[in-house]
Amino acid sequence: MHKEAIYHRAEGSYAYPLSENEIRLILKAKRGDLKRCYVLYDDRYTGPGTEKVAEMTKVCWDTLYDYFQVDIYSDTRRIRYFFYLEGENEHIWYAEGGFSEVRPLEGHFQYPYICKADLFKEPLWTKGAVIYQIFPDRFYNGDKNNDPPGCKKWGEAPDSKSFFGGDLKGVMLKLDYLKELGIDAIYFTPIFESPSNHKYDTTDYYRVDKAFGDLDTLRQLVDEAHQRGIKIILDAVFNHCGKDFWAFKEAVSKGPGSRYWQWFNIYSYPVKVGPNPNYETFANGVYTMPKLMTYNPEVREYLLGVIKYWTKEVNLDGWRLDVANEIDHSFWREFRKIVKDINPQAFILGEVWHDALKWLEGDQFDSVMNYPWRDLVVKFFAKNTIDAEAFDCELARLRMMYTSEVVSGLVNLIDSHDTPRFLTLCKGDKRKLMLAVVFQMTYPGIPMVYYGDEIGMEGDNDPDCRRTMIWEEDKQDRDIYALYKKLISIRHSFPWLANSIYRTWHVDPLKNIYGYIREGKEERIWVLINNSGLYNTLKLPLESGGKVVDLLKGEYYDVKDGMVTIALQPYSAVVLTDVNPESVRRE
Amino acid sequence: MHKEAIYHRAEGSYAYPLSENEIRLILKAKRGDLKRCYVLYDDRYTGPGTEKVAEMTKVCWDTLYDYFQVDIYSDTRRIRYFFYLEGENEHIWYAEGGFSEVRPLEGHFQYPYICKADLFKEPLWTKGAVIYQIFPDRFYNGDKNNDPPGCKKWGEAPDSKSFFGGDLKGVMLKLDYLKELGIDAIYFTPIFESPSNHKYDTTDYYRVDKAFGDLDTLRQLVDEAHQRGIKIILDAVFNHCGKDFWAFKEAVSKGPGSRYWQWFNIYSYPVKVGPNPNYETFANGVYTMPKLMTYNPEVREYLLGVIKYWTKEVNLDGWRLDVANEIDHSFWREFRKIVKDINPQAFILGEVWHDALKWLEGDQFDSVMNYPWRDLVVKFFAKNTIDAEAFDCELARLRMMYTSEVVSGLVNLIDSHDTPRFLTLCKGDKRKLMLAVVFQMTYPGIPMVYYGDEIGMEGDNDPDCRRTMIWEEDKQDRDIYALYKKLISIRHSFPWLANSIYRTWHVDPLKNIYGYIREGKEERIWVLINNSGLYNTLKLPLESGGKVVDLLKGEYYDVKDGMVTIALQPYSAVVLTDVNPESVRRE
Repeated sequence: MHKEAIYHRAEGSYAYPLSENEIRLILKAKRGDLKRCYVLYDDRYTGPGTEKVAEMTKVCWDTLYDYFQVDIYSDTRRIRYFFYLEGENEHIWYAEGGFSEVRPLEGHFQYPYICKADLFKEPLWTKGAVIYQIFPDRFYNGDKNNDPPGCKKWGEAPDSKSFFGGDLKGVMLKLDYLKELGIDAIYFTPIFESPSNHKYDTTDYYRVDKAFGDLDTLRQLVDEAHQRGIKIILDAVFNHCGKDFWAFKEAVSKGPGSRYWQWFNIYSYPVKVGPNPNYETFANGVYTMPKLMTYNPEVREYLLGVIKYWTKEVNLDGWRLDVANEIDHSFWREFRKIVKDINPQAFILGEVWHDALKWLEGDQFDSVMNYPWRDLVVKFFAKNTIDAEAFDCELARLRMMYTSEVVSGLVNLIDSHDTPRFLTLCKGDKRKLMLAVVFQMTYPGIPMVYYGDEIGMEGDNDPDCRRTMIWEEDKQDRDIYALYKKLISIRHSFPWLANSIYRTWHVDPLKNIYGYIREGKEERIWVLINNSGLYNTLKLPLESGGKVVDLLKGEYYDVKDGMVTIALQPYSAVVLTDVNPESVRRE
Repeated sequence: MHKEAIYHRAEGSYAYPLSENEIRLILKAKRGDLKRCYVLYDDRYTGPGTEKVAEMTKVCWDTLYDYFQVDIYSDTRRIRYFFYLEGENEHIWYAEGGFSEVRPLEGHFQYPYICKADLFKEPLWTKGAVIYQIFPDRFYNGDKNNDPPGCKKWGEAPDSKSFFGGDLKGVMLKLDYLKELGIDAIYFTPIFESPSNHKYDTTDYYRVDKAFGDLDTLRQLVDEAHQRGIKIILDAVFNHCGKDFWAFKEAVSKGPGSRYWQWFNIYSYPVKVGPNPNYETFANGVYTMPKLMTYNPEVREYLLGVIKYWTKEVNLDGWRLDVANEIDHSFWREFRKIVKDINPQAFILGEVWHDALKWLEGDQFDSVMNYPWRDLVVKFFAKNTIDAEAFDCELARLRMMYTSEVVSGLVNLIDSHDTPRFLTLCKGDKRKLMLAVVFQMTYPGIPMVYYGDEIGMEGDNDPDCRRTMIWEEDKQDRDIYALYKKLISIRHSFPWLANSIYRTWHVDPLKNIYGYIREGKEERIWVLINNSGLYNTLKLPLESGGKVVDLLKGEYYDVKDGMVTIALQPYSAVVLTDVNPESVRRE
């Protein structure tokens, strides 16, 4: 047995509560090394010798590891436990104190108490929801009167300085379009006063940019959206402000004597607001974006005041946090408390492109934008640089990085205002995009659609990925639109697709075919994806009696002797479910 | 290479800041598997291809793993990094995205920003300090007038209900004794009003138990202690109260209509305050200790008010937190904020007997009572159930469980009011106790002495380990006392002994000899322990020119050609340092 590959620790994604009386335990071992794995557990004030035994299930595997999982119930909420591991020709015991040949009497792992206050609580409405991301200057121009000077013509190619006149009134006028598509929430990139088109350089945190509207427009937009059951999420840009933010301007003009000097990290006086600035900024010397010192209590109070004001004033449903991982954890803990005190159902979504465990332990964010997941989707569907087996393994690895609650709430995106459009990465082959969307909409988590993806918009890296939305139906790709609409409707019919239960069904790296099973309490969905340019017919085991139906095309498949035969066009997929009159009716 | 045994994650004890511009990285690999290990790093907004390279040092190893460590400096505080690992016949790259045969261009590990507000800040005074634990009823009776009725005679064997009349006045009268011993801080088990001798069942959180004194006595004690440079730490018992606590009594008498009903978890009415209680308690049905529902905001406000009151009112230096791991993290975060706002130098010490990582990430405790370390010390010195090699490996494993700042602040104890006395576990062989104390006082962390250990008191499990202090010098073991005093003085002369830098010097499982090297900025200490009943003479490499001196006996040893020869009596030790006129003078 490869003891050095076995990992468990009573914390993070390896031991976490599911409810006030239940914890989930995960143990990782070298792939193929363990035949069976058991947990022995009891109240931590009893024993030793009194332990109950539960066998763990191998829930998934990646290139290196198998992952074993078990949920254990505790009346008293106080749990001690240890493991019994069976290899091919040996067995061993494993506890907090390490491995032993004999059953350990002490030094057991401990989950000391399941504290109600520490349970991970994400909003209820995000389960099964689909979010739509809007870059307001480029979505729809609903009010020509507030257009910034020098606006380009709608449809022209954007550069980094372009304005197009899109605004909140425009979004309001298109809410019915979004409702029709099936959208549950809109995430807006920043809307507060700023000189740029992207508005990540805030001038005034208390004012809606006049090119987008004003407080009343925002209020009206939120009301109109809420009437349609659509939630509104705004972008909180607190890592840095804009160079025209009043506090920065005062620090620049008054120098070290200014009471705002300490709001920033300015190295010397006079302050050089230009290339090679002498103050700390976002990224490498982006002088238009001075970094805010969020450890300074005054800065903290100011920014938290902003959050309190908007969350309350316009009845917001959530915040997306820009550059969230460069701001201190203690700030986000206070942030969470303030937001959730006002609206316990508010959604807190961090921008973290990498491992985000430290922000996802229940005390800070509900979710992050799942860029590591996007990387895999790009590699498998758009660029074909990984095969079906690597894709399956890497997905498992990502799912096991966080707790199951976190995984079911991650925001899965295939692109954003910060990446090339997915269709462009597919070199315009819309079949590949469509496969990625089938996958996105049937994977655990919360799908996010970047405006225009649903009608086949293209665009390379920023600024090209921020083109104006195409509204003329004849210029939209209606096939893609129809697929999005269909899949969002499936997502609504099977909201449990958001949950984290996911099993590999079929992996064929040779033919590049990938299948997986999703499980609700009473329903199941089987997805089979042919990610190759060849026709393929497969005969696969399917545990269901009678018929299954492809929710995409409505075609029925017979299950005979536990097997189903499926013929797949190049770059195509089926989304099968048991033929259940109720679920078909919902369709 | 055993890829499945390699572990790093950009969090916890594997990646943490040392200062605003420096992080420490740890990578774990199968013992003996890697020949060399490098990190490549740069600002996370640059590259790829621009990375600086630093070789990692193998700082220690345990039975299964080698641990590689490196500190990297960042001007911008934003770090991306990946590893280059060399095995015997192969090399591989390792990044957040996994292993690769080629240098990874993306998916690097990220330490996104070193946030000042998130740096681990423990009190300054604990570095080099020695804490003394007092069980007040048993230390010294300074005021016969407040003796509880039915007090036993000082020196009689205690049972679980005994009282002996020890009090705060008694401690005050013995402060000079503690000062003479060299104590820097006293931790008192609970002193607030309660019917028991241990007082872990609080009746009134706002009143000093009258058998111990009153507010004025406590205030005077703190003042007197502070005049001698001794800090005072009290016990916060917030997991549960006593059955006579007013809120519980009112819930019991008024039932579900009481506003205090929700302060507890009472299953039904009427409330059965007796064996097999119908409410949640500490441990398994300890009916005298009803569990407090710290998720209830009213309970929280009440308890935090108690903390605020005492910390401010009597100028306290810290709190020890009883059953700390059965209370929610969010409570402790608020607790920390309140305590540190009043006294940033206050010490927050949790009672957690097991893996305590979740409480030691800077937002909750400064330290915990290091019981896993005590387990090893008991096994190696008292019971001889592990040999020198296992001891060394297990110590390394424990050190690598936490960040270096945490390790240097852990409270190392060899016994307490909750365990048998160490000398009793040694079956009275004081040579073994004395070795353990040499080890305790030269190991990273904060040593804690349980009252009476320093004069050779014995006692089995509670209540026997809570005997009355022996004050007659002729009944005290003066050898043990002299050793304690000497070692505490060494600790004060070399306060950097608290830090976490620790290297194995010599491990001989056959002869059961164990040696290690401690390193300050300009000084070093070599400790060699003969944990066997045989005479042993060793010739060992020692990197020092000229002479070294044993700080315990004052004997000098010549270092010739980088070697030193040491003859050790059975169960004896030397504590060597370079002969440095200044350090000898301090002695």
